[in-house]
Amino acid sequence: MGEKDHSDKELAGRGELSFVPLDVIRRVRHQNAADAIARASLVADLCRLNTLYMIMSAGSGHIGSSFSAMDVLTWLWTDYLVDANSDAHNSDIYFSSKGHDAPALYALLIALEKLDFDLLHKLRRLDGLPGHPDVSTPFIATNTGSLGMGISKAYGMARAKRFAGRQGRVVVMTGDGELQEGQIWESLQPCANEQLGEIVVVVDHNKLQSDSLVTAVSDLGAIEDKFRSFGWEVARADGHDLGRVKDIFARFDRVSDTPKVLIADTVKGKGVSFMEGLACGDQTYHFHAGAPSLENYLAAVDEITARVNGALSRLHQPPLALARAPLPTRVAPSKPEKLVLAYGDELLTMARSRKDIVVLDGDLLSDCGIEAFKAELPDRFIECGIAEQHMVSAAGGMALEGLLPVVHSFACFLSTRANEHIYNNATERRKIIYTATLAGAIPGGPGHSHQSVRDISAVGSVPGLTVIEPSSEREARLSIRWAVETNDASTYLRFVNVPLDLPYSLPASYALEIGKGVTLRDGADVALVGYGPVLLSNAWRAAEELAADGVRAAVINLPWLNRIDDAWTRDVLGTFPVVVTLDNHYRSLGQGVMIAAALARNGVRAAVRTLGLDDVPACGTNAEVLARHGLDAASIATAVRSCIQAKSFTG
Amino acid sequence: MGEKDHSDKELAGRGELSFVPLDVIRRVRHQNAADAIARASLVADLCRLNTLYMIMSAGSGHIGSSFSAMDVLTWLWTDYLVDANSDAHNSDIYFSSKGHDAPALYALLIALEKLDFDLLHKLRRLDGLPGHPDVSTPFIATNTGSLGMGISKAYGMARAKRFAGRQGRVVVMTGDGELQEGQIWESLQPCANEQLGEIVVVVDHNKLQSDSLVTAVSDLGAIEDKFRSFGWEVARADGHDLGRVKDIFARFDRVSDTPKVLIADTVKGKGVSFMEGLACGDQTYHFHAGAPSLENYLAAVDEITARVNGALSRLHQPPLALARAPLPTRVAPSKPEKLVLAYGDELLTMARSRKDIVVLDGDLLSDCGIEAFKAELPDRFIECGIAEQHMVSAAGGMALEGLLPVVHSFACFLSTRANEHIYNNATERRKIIYTATLAGAIPGGPGHSHQSVRDISAVGSVPGLTVIEPSSEREARLSIRWAVETNDASTYLRFVNVPLDLPYSLPASYALEIGKGVTLRDGADVALVGYGPVLLSNAWRAAEELAADGVRAAVINLPWLNRIDDAWTRDVLGTFPVVVTLDNHYRSLGQGVMIAAALARNGVRAAVRTLGLDDVPACGTNAEVLARHGLDAASIATAVRSCIQAKSFTG
Repeated sequence: MGEKDHSDKELAGRGELSFVPLDVIRRVRHQNAADAIARASLVADLCRLNTLYMIMSAGSGHIGSSFSAMDVLTWLWTDYLVDANSDAHNSDIYFSSKGHDAPALYALLIALEKLDFDLLHKLRRLDGLPGHPDVSTPFIATNTGSLGMGISKAYGMARAKRFAGRQGRVVVMTGDGELQEGQIWESLQPCANEQLGEIVVVVDHNKLQSDSLVTAVSDLGAIEDKFRSFGWEVARADGHDLGRVKDIFARFDRVSDTPKVLIADTVKGKGVSFMEGLACGDQTYHFHAGAPSLENYLAAVDEITARVNGALSRLHQPPLALARAPLPTRVAPSKPEKLVLAYGDELLTMARSRKDIVVLDGDLLSDCGIEAFKAELPDRFIECGIAEQHMVSAAGGMALEGLLPVVHSFACFLSTRANEHIYNNATERRKIIYTATLAGAIPGGPGHSHQSVRDISAVGSVPGLTVIEPSSEREARLSIRWAVETNDASTYLRFVNVPLDLPYSLPASYALEIGKGVTLRDGADVALVGYGPVLLSNAWRAAEELAADGVRAAVINLPWLNRIDDAWTRDVLGTFPVVVTLDNHYRSLGQGVMIAAALARNGVRAAVRTLGLDDVPACGTNAEVLARHGLDAASIATAVRSCIQAKSFTG
Repeated sequence: MGEKDHSDKELAGRGELSFVPLDVIRRVRHQNAADAIARASLVADLCRLNTLYMIMSAGSGHIGSSFSAMDVLTWLWTDYLVDANSDAHNSDIYFSSKGHDAPALYALLIALEKLDFDLLHKLRRLDGLPGHPDVSTPFIATNTGSLGMGISKAYGMARAKRFAGRQGRVVVMTGDGELQEGQIWESLQPCANEQLGEIVVVVDHNKLQSDSLVTAVSDLGAIEDKFRSFGWEVARADGHDLGRVKDIFARFDRVSDTPKVLIADTVKGKGVSFMEGLACGDQTYHFHAGAPSLENYLAAVDEITARVNGALSRLHQPPLALARAPLPTRVAPSKPEKLVLAYGDELLTMARSRKDIVVLDGDLLSDCGIEAFKAELPDRFIECGIAEQHMVSAAGGMALEGLLPVVHSFACFLSTRANEHIYNNATERRKIIYTATLAGAIPGGPGHSHQSVRDISAVGSVPGLTVIEPSSEREARLSIRWAVETNDASTYLRFVNVPLDLPYSLPASYALEIGKGVTLRDGADVALVGYGPVLLSNAWRAAEELAADGVRAAVINLPWLNRIDDAWTRDVLGTFPVVVTLDNHYRSLGQGVMIAAALARNGVRAAVRTLGLDDVPACGTNAEVLARHGLDAASIATAVRSCIQAKSFTG
């Protein structure tokens, strides 16, 4: 993977990022019209270059999954689909259920001039191309990003077409890890029962989910037998052999009364040798999400370019002329706090002596801070795969048998996909800890399927379940220790994953007390009350801005998201003329509403303003997203000023 | 099914309910010890008699599912399981994942003297035996009632046993309709991958779900192939032929590294000729839930008793001596409002002219008021079966293709099993109507899996989704009309299913206005604000009680569960010195919290008290449950008095 003494800085000297400009794509598309398959392969490689460019520009995105799907995807859109995703009466529909291969589809739609070329520069940017597909983008048929919903959606689309007397196929791409989701199997039989031959599913079977082998996470067993037993027509082929793929689709088109699935054997990261499968020789795949290093990027561009130029040369066409773009600069935090890692470390420390602790993971261990746990205590680590419902109910079974299960996933999935299961466990009154990461509106890149701004509402009323969001590494450690050692009932720990420099610190004597907040910054004119590192940092910066105006704003950390102590409300919040709450969550049914209600119940007469999200979170850089939703420091300061002004008018 | 001129009143003259007393059961169990299978069959029939008694006493319960499972269940507990569900180190575990066969298990546990005999008289009563299993009952291993969780729980239990070095099998009963739930398939592969030979699943394949044929709802296809493709050892047999069942379990015990499933072909309602399968000749099963008529009850008792006496006679034992108990009296409402039927009628009326309306159902059409829709517009009715995730995502696909889907299930399942799916649809900003019935704490009989007191919280923060609960038939009609004709975005309609006599009526001029309530009863001292027929009726009665004390309590209906108009809050609620909110829901994150927050945000200085549930709802009669949670008229009046008193102290 390159030489060690090539630092990113030196390599940057080699130039900038590069992409394939539209005129070059056009020429390749039109000059190779005769051989559809050769053309598709070539266009796919151009799209791989532009996918790499988009991900490097954005700083994140899924290369491996984009590249494994790229060949089939390109063939579908250049050869197979008719009027795909258009308003035409009998249009075909295509969408990706796995969703994180969106950069591949975007690169292709741009190459086919269905999306503006300028969008190439706007992956994961505000009003650009979201990290996961959204119907606000032209030619995107449905919103995906949470796994397992695609075939159900296809069922709905196919039935709707039949209602309306419209023709057209519905082609869905799924991942292979995605087949662990129960909804996939829930959706198969209805499609067969209704004889929905319109539906064609392609399983991008690249054998890797996130950064691990599917077989190591939760083996799929006999995939073909499974689909057949649910009444589907099944084929299997090398997903990079487009001749075979074409033949199979032709066969599929002759079957009108049965839904069809192609198990496409593909290679994750296909097209760049060192990104392909477990090429590095260890058991971890390194190009699932996130941008590659500049060194890897440049090597990948070289390799694809050389292959494309070889093909062009054989076709007697000129070599690629890539366009250049500057390498984006990103300011990294200097001493960022990494709450999730601190949490995981503290959990591991306790687990060394508490043998009842068992960790369950939903295929997100590195994002949940539990890699070290797995490495040290593999016998007490259970990888459940992409199966949140199963994981949470399994934890319930373990708790009934006397264990202390600690369940991990992203907040967006854990709180909503397994919502009824968390409740069912709660009714058994056994102790379970739910650790929900990637909470809140940022990172803003992945898009709304991953921006968890609804989980306080979704789990906050579960009886006996205490919801906490720590604001620092220290509070992260205190929180998991409280959940394990102090709390007799269940806890839902909500974590922000963005590493941040924090302007505040907790008092040295700080200890968690249910429902009580802690003042991080003193002030008398207004209380800014919130939780977690993102908004408490911005509240701090807003307070500094307000101090310049002579407004003394206190910043108060209330890590309890569904417990508010009445005496604390009266004694602490009751001293402020103005209380402004800050939710890294929808305003509706977030912490702010509970604080406002507590003020009312306790007869506190402060002027109250609740800040938070009101609409589906935007996709963009973290700064863009927070500003869009009025949660950056400047917006918070403005809101405080307006609230104080209103108060001074009304008394 | 009996003669028409036998009215229930005349039949009641024949006597009372009857049950098999403990001494009789004991004799049968002990005198037939030699032949385990014959004994099990006989004990099963005694339990059928007691199951019928329990359901008649309770006024509701699932006969069909109890009877189909009874033979296998009895054999398991009398012959196969070792120290089942006990504290013994290597105990076996048994539980029913379908859960609604609880009366059968209770009758059996009582017969085996594992439960106090007195509990026979307390099915679905406060502090008695809940409608669905709960671990607060001895020998109940886990809480079920929502379908599909059982095999995941068994996985957790089996893994926990292995962690602890304990032996013992985990035997799980599932329904056949239950196999439509995706979680079943999500849970199968992990059990096979971990070689959990401890797990034995019995599918009670009685061919009927609720009141319809499984094949008519959502055909299961090749069940055996399905389980095999997920790596399970599969057997199939007549579930009433206990010799065969015994042989299969013996074979299962020789397989240690593979989970096993017995597809038990059974007959719903087995043991009473006219309750067996579709014996009545139409396509509707009449004994799924609810108590039978007295006529049917007596005929069933006669039939089972005759069979038991025949067997006893062949064994030279005396005939059954049944004990008698009085027929419970129940007061029916005189002119009850049936909101769900009114809703369904209005929807059908609109659908006649609006061709874009399509109805989806999750196997609960009679409880959702849409039987008439299906009958009149079968081409626009889609039965999804027990597959809420699939149903909601399918609705999303339909909405994307221009239809207006109206999705139906119980509130507890729709809002929480398909929670992420409702959100995903919302992000696509298409219009969908979710109709959620059986909302709130009553009926109190089915137990907490069915008492939906968390759905406002679970869906209330979904952007663009307006949540409404109508309080009368008229408001039910207004609500669905508003959702179809006026609201551009999506609506979640929450319905109470209990038919009630209503003490109030809406003003003649009433029209729905977002976020604004309507005063049902005038008053100046306190505002009782709530929604829905249950608590508004009790608020009315509390107001009458308070009026006798000279307290003038207004009763205000605010059907908007997540929209509160600021001006209305100031102008109407702002005139009251005391505001008491009433949630047929957890207090935490219900409407009351939003009202209290609205009061605070709008500077209203009223004393505020929020009433609602704080703990998992009790199971019992409707009156028992409401009183237990402080939501009957007397408790509301008491709370109001205490709030007024506190106000007069603090000013």
